[in-house]
Amino acid sequence: MSQQFENVSVLKQANVYFDGKCVSHTVILQDGTRKSVGVILPSALVFNTGAPEIMEIIAGKCSVKLKGETEARVYGAGESFNVPGDSSFDIEALETLHYVCHFG
Amino acid sequence: MSQQFENVSVLKQANVYFDGKCVSHTVILQDGTRKSVGVILPSALVFNTGAPEIMEIIAGKCSVKLKGETEARVYGAGESFNVPGDSSFDIEALETLHYVCHFG
Repeated sequence: MSQQFENVSVLKQANVYFDGKCVSHTVILQDGTRKSVGVILPSALVFNTGAPEIMEIIAGKCSVKLKGETEARVYGAGESFNVPGDSSFDIEALETLHYVCHFG
Repeated sequence: MSQQFENVSVLKQANVYFDGKCVSHTVILQDGTRKSVGVILPSALVFNTGAPEIMEIIAGKCSVKLKGETEARVYGAGESFNVPGDSSFDIEALETLHYVCHFG
């Protein structure tokens, strides 16, 4: 797993959600693809998705329950989970979570 | 003021300070210059500098008192302040602060 994105654009203004429990910056690849690099502080949050997402865990640990599922699963560094579009997921950051969010 | 950095590298893992009250991501320009894009949540913090820094405010508002100064000054979007190396500054984010930090 590469530790950095190269030859990208980065928006200077961040995205701040849930009173700052989630902070991300938008990254735009050369082909126009948007991703975000972010942090979720230890907390339990519910995210809604518009487009489908892949959440890639860079560091930290989280427990995730997708909408419609009954059991949560724990994900750590190097792991990813997929979220369908127009859905939601419960996420508990068990440790400060560093992630990349891939859309679409 | 450009709203984004272009043709840069971005580290996927963030820098998290003060229990998450400050979260930044490191950006590396093509010439190797490092900057960071970050957020300070409403709080009063003291930062120590190694290298000199220029803090450029992208959005939000803060009150800043440099080491050795007696009065704080308020900075908002589009403004910057310089901090000497091996020094410190008191910063109170009066609103969620989005910034770019330039080093050296």
